[in-house]
Amino acid sequence: MRGMETWDAIRARRNVREYQDRPIDPHDLDRILEAGRRSPSSSNRQRWDFVVCTDREQLVELAKVWHGARHVASSAATIVLLAPQADDPRMAASIAYDLGQVTMSMMLAAADLGIGSGHASVGDQDLARQILGHPQDRRAAYMIALGHPAGRPLAPLRAPDRRPFDQVVHRGRW
Amino acid sequence: MRGMETWDAIRARRNVREYQDRPIDPHDLDRILEAGRRSPSSSNRQRWDFVVCTDREQLVELAKVWHGARHVASSAATIVLLAPQADDPRMAASIAYDLGQVTMSMMLAAADLGIGSGHASVGDQDLARQILGHPQDRRAAYMIALGHPAGRPLAPLRAPDRRPFDQVVHRGRW
Repeated sequence: MRGMETWDAIRARRNVREYQDRPIDPHDLDRILEAGRRSPSSSNRQRWDFVVCTDREQLVELAKVWHGARHVASSAATIVLLAPQADDPRMAASIAYDLGQVTMSMMLAAADLGIGSGHASVGDQDLARQILGHPQDRRAAYMIALGHPAGRPLAPLRAPDRRPFDQVVHRGRW
Repeated sequence: MRGMETWDAIRARRNVREYQDRPIDPHDLDRILEAGRRSPSSSNRQRWDFVVCTDREQLVELAKVWHGARHVASSAATIVLLAPQADDPRMAASIAYDLGQVTMSMMLAAADLGIGSGHASVGDQDLARQILGHPQDRRAAYMIALGHPAGRPLAPLRAPDRRPFDQVVHRGRW
């Protein structure tokens, strides 16, 4: 069994938007989906569905739903996270928080297998519905593009481009 | 070095709300914080600050900010995720999505070390501000309580209480 230590996977995950022309093993893809399914959610409501796309023509179309999703076109697979429509802003934020946890679970499960991920938002809901066929009471919220990195393989990053630890972390009080 | 395989950590993470009366090693706590710091975010904006609380009296007070946060009182440490105030619902959802990713990174980094986690929302913003001292332009968004599980140790769950895989996952189209 492949796979790495958790701490290595956490440090190796990075946004990958250029992929090898190589499919993802179906068992690996199912494991990534399973990681998402296992995520916790507010009152365990699991307000999500996952549509997994691997067809090239479909991926090329899917890449058009958001200007920041062009990399979806060349991904080996993209998982679309669908959620109930939410008019109430508090409910919308609660769903988004849960989907953020799903996203990170999936991305770390992917990194563990050496598979790169690049998540993106969805803009054009009509186009997304046309491509995916979900009912009107659901919306396509986020996409997670997956593929073996075309560039350097995943390996722990020493110095990620982030605010310094001591600026982000406060001890006891702000 | 302790730690487990990523796939084991993903399957071992569960909500833990009862903790041993035992502190978390400061290096472990820093690793959990570092996992959150490394999370990706929309345009890498990192709209977050982490306040880590380990003082018992403070934890007891902090547990009062939300009816679903009583377990914070007996946690060994609780990390509060602070974010900018967001009046725009779309920005609020975007911040929540990013904080969801931070949360899962921290929870998996904790699980990897055998440390349980139980996240919670924040209701009473005035009380949270009184306890934590953050400025008016920030709000306490979520809390992640941490501690060594009082009950059974963390180990991969065979059958988590979730919707069936085939109900959640759609292939190609809804």
